[in-house]
Amino acid sequence: MQPRKILVVVMDGLGDRAVKELHWKTPLQSANRPNLNWFAEHGATGIIDIIGPGVRPGSDTSHLAILGYDPYQVYTGRGPFEAAGTGLVGERGDVAFRCNFATVDQNMVVVDRRAGRIKEPDTTMLVESLSGMSVDGVEIVVKEATEHRAVLLLRGKGLSAKVSDVDPHTETKIHEAQALEHEAKKTAKVVNHFVQRSYELLKDHPVNQRRRREGKPPANILLPRGAGVFPDIQPFEERYRMTGACVAGVSLIKGICRVCGLDVIEVEGATGGLDTDMVAKAKAAIRLLDTYDFVLMNVKAADVASHDGDADLKVKVIERLDEMAGIIRSDMPEGTVVAFLADHCTPIEVKDHSGDPVPLLIYCQGMVRDANASYDEASCAHGGLGRLRGKDVLPILIDKAGRSEKFGA
Amino acid sequence: MQPRKILVVVMDGLGDRAVKELHWKTPLQSANRPNLNWFAEHGATGIIDIIGPGVRPGSDTSHLAILGYDPYQVYTGRGPFEAAGTGLVGERGDVAFRCNFATVDQNMVVVDRRAGRIKEPDTTMLVESLSGMSVDGVEIVVKEATEHRAVLLLRGKGLSAKVSDVDPHTETKIHEAQALEHEAKKTAKVVNHFVQRSYELLKDHPVNQRRRREGKPPANILLPRGAGVFPDIQPFEERYRMTGACVAGVSLIKGICRVCGLDVIEVEGATGGLDTDMVAKAKAAIRLLDTYDFVLMNVKAADVASHDGDADLKVKVIERLDEMAGIIRSDMPEGTVVAFLADHCTPIEVKDHSGDPVPLLIYCQGMVRDANASYDEASCAHGGLGRLRGKDVLPILIDKAGRSEKFGA
Repeated sequence: MQPRKILVVVMDGLGDRAVKELHWKTPLQSANRPNLNWFAEHGATGIIDIIGPGVRPGSDTSHLAILGYDPYQVYTGRGPFEAAGTGLVGERGDVAFRCNFATVDQNMVVVDRRAGRIKEPDTTMLVESLSGMSVDGVEIVVKEATEHRAVLLLRGKGLSAKVSDVDPHTETKIHEAQALEHEAKKTAKVVNHFVQRSYELLKDHPVNQRRRREGKPPANILLPRGAGVFPDIQPFEERYRMTGACVAGVSLIKGICRVCGLDVIEVEGATGGLDTDMVAKAKAAIRLLDTYDFVLMNVKAADVASHDGDADLKVKVIERLDEMAGIIRSDMPEGTVVAFLADHCTPIEVKDHSGDPVPLLIYCQGMVRDANASYDEASCAHGGLGRLRGKDVLPILIDKAGRSEKFGA
Repeated sequence: MQPRKILVVVMDGLGDRAVKELHWKTPLQSANRPNLNWFAEHGATGIIDIIGPGVRPGSDTSHLAILGYDPYQVYTGRGPFEAAGTGLVGERGDVAFRCNFATVDQNMVVVDRRAGRIKEPDTTMLVESLSGMSVDGVEIVVKEATEHRAVLLLRGKGLSAKVSDVDPHTETKIHEAQALEHEAKKTAKVVNHFVQRSYELLKDHPVNQRRRREGKPPANILLPRGAGVFPDIQPFEERYRMTGACVAGVSLIKGICRVCGLDVIEVEGATGGLDTDMVAKAKAAIRLLDTYDFVLMNVKAADVASHDGDADLKVKVIERLDEMAGIIRSDMPEGTVVAFLADHCTPIEVKDHSGDPVPLLIYCQGMVRDANASYDEASCAHGGLGRLRGKDVLPILIDKAGRSEKFGA
């Protein structure tokens, strides 16, 4: 059979629990969703424990699982994936941190953890002044991320990610990075030296002089946290013998995909927020199927509504997601293997991720339909795909696409 | 979300197979069970392979799995859990045995393996005479258990549980404990010495002199069997960051719970037999939810009826269990996450545990209901929770209770 294209649509935080103000239905059950239900009717459904039963996934670990990797093997902390989200993909062994531009007083007490929510172009100019640094033979790279955020990457011999956060997470004196294992002493020293240098280089920087004149808090220090080593991940194309691309608005998701070796394609209007242009994302994903074998798209909006605990808003977002599914239904190339799923549940009552299983639907030509024609948490629990793990999904799609290797003869 | 309480109700040996005298229904299907069905209707159901498909669990391994531990990793034999059942919780590395008080003749041939089913207060006095012994630097502790049973605990350097049973299990000459590995030679020597000493100390003990006068067989020796080393189990509270208690009538279940670090609460009328006061147990469990985050209750009666092969009796027991479920339904604190399950099937036709999956039901506020409203083996097999493993259940309950940790960001 001719190999087919694969499209995975991750509706971030879609799954939920029974919600009182929705008369004990879930937002998905409450939403008008003719297109998702069309796919359910013509495809097969099930539920997935993204990591394992009852395990609350992060958006990072969940996407690793959806890409077929075992998060317990490859997840090394948030730092490297955030760094990759900014485009800074390190090599195996590099240590990366998330950072905040912050405001400290002369006693190194944090006055504002976000330096007045400073953003570009100020951060761009500040980052420039920190570039090209090297401590004890360790190369230091700093890159700005969204708003007051940045990432720090260390490259050199004898590094370890077992160092504690400099960011005190509250408005107190900054911490010294501590080595949490003997092998991390050098790394802790480099980090502390970098933090000190960042203060010296930033405190009287022209950007900060201007901010002071404008009554804004100066971004006079960088506070690293969440150290992680760049993992040894087998690149997607080598692992699955197919090319892959990603469309996402959220930096962390982009980072995960980049570390796995997917091409991250920027789409105008894709924000990672409630205002994201879902139609533009779906159209971009469909266009990418012309040139790529595999496309993953992530739409964050349902998760955002859930974190706000707004059930009615979540229902409205899901109805927009359904319209997006309508575009996929009408425009996707013939023969495409498409999966709709969530990366985790974000129940309204929790306002955060939960370990509940998420609804899965797979559709392609030649699919053996199950008895379920409704895409929602309760119906999919009775679906013909049964209860699977997150990392099982991609192998199933690859096989439906005629791209799997035979094990044995 | 506010963390919720968790109640796990283990209906021991509940699951069964189709029974001819019940017109090929299971006892559970045959029983009137409005309350269990109410929970099924308002919650979600599934089936569990407590250990794995087709694996016949013991009550010990099954409860380890229900407490979320991997029995293949932590189960080290029955001895230590029986010892803990009597309240004798050893330290990691201690070796424990189950023992019988038995009657032997002067040639060490067993005349009565249970010494006329001797019980307290006779056993209490006999155990006293064996206390405070030490052999080769190994401290020896003996504690009485129910009826003719006792437990033996060895504490010291260089011990191993790889020793064979002294109890010949038939009325023949007692065995010498044999080292089953080189490192067990010392332990075998200590055990054999202890058995010899027990004979010397017991044979003319006043209790046995009296028993002889009364025409009863003297309990003139202790016969150890089932050696096991106390396992290195991460305590429940440390593992799950919640406090836990157990209500059970059976010593072995108490032992499992004690070794895992749960507080075992004695309830008047809880016997572990057919005469147990289920209502008292349920009320005690509900009261415990005031102070503990997690309560496990075990009711043994259905298992007892099954071991007797009495289908009608099992139906009646299940109807009492349903009344108990009614009390839980009406009295449990609002928001409690409750699970009903069996620790294994004990089919009438087998009169012993089987490896059949057991029916599971989970109920809490906000639960996405499945399409099944009946709590029985066949209906739960179509339930929305699918087919899970025993050790998956607790993580699911912990997540529903808002007590799970996020893996990733």
